[in-house]
Amino acid sequence: MRLRGGIDLGGTKIQAVVVGPRHGVRGQSRIPTPKDAGPAGVIQGMAEALATAAQNAGVETSDLDGVGVGSPGDVENDAGTVSRAYNVVPDWDGAVEVAELLRAHTGTRVALGNDVRVATTAEFELGAGRPYQSLLGVFWGTGVGGGVMLNGGPWRGRGAAGEIGHMVVRRNGARCPCGRDGCMEAYAGRRAMELEARRRMKHGDKTALFRIMERKSRPALTSGVWATALEHGDKMAVELIDRAVAALAAGIASAVNLLDVEAVVIGGGLGTRLGTPYVERIQREMHPHLFVDSRPPAVHPAALGDLSGALGAALLVR
Amino acid sequence: MRLRGGIDLGGTKIQAVVVGPRHGVRGQSRIPTPKDAGPAGVIQGMAEALATAAQNAGVETSDLDGVGVGSPGDVENDAGTVSRAYNVVPDWDGAVEVAELLRAHTGTRVALGNDVRVATTAEFELGAGRPYQSLLGVFWGTGVGGGVMLNGGPWRGRGAAGEIGHMVVRRNGARCPCGRDGCMEAYAGRRAMELEARRRMKHGDKTALFRIMERKSRPALTSGVWATALEHGDKMAVELIDRAVAALAAGIASAVNLLDVEAVVIGGGLGTRLGTPYVERIQREMHPHLFVDSRPPAVHPAALGDLSGALGAALLVR
Repeated sequence: MRLRGGIDLGGTKIQAVVVGPRHGVRGQSRIPTPKDAGPAGVIQGMAEALATAAQNAGVETSDLDGVGVGSPGDVENDAGTVSRAYNVVPDWDGAVEVAELLRAHTGTRVALGNDVRVATTAEFELGAGRPYQSLLGVFWGTGVGGGVMLNGGPWRGRGAAGEIGHMVVRRNGARCPCGRDGCMEAYAGRRAMELEARRRMKHGDKTALFRIMERKSRPALTSGVWATALEHGDKMAVELIDRAVAALAAGIASAVNLLDVEAVVIGGGLGTRLGTPYVERIQREMHPHLFVDSRPPAVHPAALGDLSGALGAALLVR
Repeated sequence: MRLRGGIDLGGTKIQAVVVGPRHGVRGQSRIPTPKDAGPAGVIQGMAEALATAAQNAGVETSDLDGVGVGSPGDVENDAGTVSRAYNVVPDWDGAVEVAELLRAHTGTRVALGNDVRVATTAEFELGAGRPYQSLLGVFWGTGVGGGVMLNGGPWRGRGAAGEIGHMVVRRNGARCPCGRDGCMEAYAGRRAMELEARRRMKHGDKTALFRIMERKSRPALTSGVWATALEHGDKMAVELIDRAVAALAAGIASAVNLLDVEAVVIGGGLGTRLGTPYVERIQREMHPHLFVDSRPPAVHPAALGDLSGALGAALLVR
């Protein structure tokens, strides 16, 4: 039985899976991303999460054909390194030998890929994108990531294609966490939305968002916190999510006008948590911006939910 | 000697060329687009322009290996038809058998292509895009058209890729001639800019734009009219061109963030007329919006100038 591992490395959590030859999940495990021991602590956390997933599948990590890692930051698979993964731990700046260190922990070979790109590939090959030859993957979470599939495969450009979150939806608009102005992510990224919520609170606006966060013992406004606030009809949450939906719709429609892809798949923490009703709202609000509005692209929620990253990472092991 | 014809069909003029085997121009001709005899009059105009270009090359049109036509509207090369070319003559709605009618006039076979796409291909194969494998062509004129070249060839999507002029640069922004809000073309297209200039005049703002237009006996604010007004430091012209440059910069940078292409080529009536200084301004104003600003794409003015459309059309004859 040939099993492969996949690890989705995020700023909040590490998700590990062990899959069989036909991509079925045999074991999985999820842990909070260790924040207090730098990159070394994160790599140990990945090894532990994978060990638990392997145990659930009835094997050792050294029995796996290999493990793929979907990582933020600058990923160099040939060198086996990841640099500038500030989202994961703030001091992750220089190149860390993730492949070599994780191999030492797990006893199996390691392949690295960009987190958003592997998640897009997973949706394309195994999920909502299976019927299509061209696709835009949009991952709506802490930031807004994108993946471009054209002619049946990924389009990488010079290595950095897919930054849909940093398409400009409003010139001279809101400040983005990336430091630029008017990016889609400045309106739709969870980090930017939390900053805006704090700003509005300071100006005297009321919201239950932070009370819900404390009640749930969360360190930040997670997707679950936003979802609960929306269920309660919290005015600020509704306004900020409306603003996010409008920005996503304008940015995604712009990308469709440029590329005329067959389909758009929307996932990520917020996309998955808010699900179909919000994906359908994005689709409706895209329509007035579509240049060829007589045949809009298909728009689907990510079918693999929050496993798309880990399943896509497992696809790196070929 | 194998010669080919190329015709760039525009709303203002028809440009014809006759080229040799290595794409050198052997003859050319340019006439105003006939406006008073519907699509049939336009096709006759194309035949006459081509006949003059052929004559300059010392041949008859029937001696040509064929002629390519780059056309606006919905172009169906297999059917040999063009429909919805309202820019050319307002009553050009249904499918017109351009290939068959033009063959009857010229005695040579006819290939049809989308005007912006053939111009992009010309820059890619013969002009400023020759060193690159991926490229964004931006044609800044009456509207703002775009062409996408990836992996050494055109990316067409489902047939309508490249509508960079209808990427959203300002949600809920200015009304575009296409009827949508906040498109790049709503700020940068010559038609939209003229409407905005008339609106500002009505509100009492002063400008020399329309006096220059009358002095030059032009029916509209042509690229030459804008250039002259800029040379005279006309305040409204400067403001509207600044606004156009900012919109172009934001939209092109967004497209680069999504596709990470190697190069951008900027042509079209205004792009060609205003030339390098304005292309360099667009490049500078793109920079703050580029996600990977450490290695921006190359940005070039179209090397073939206002012949890129006709030369690209001639490339349709293979």
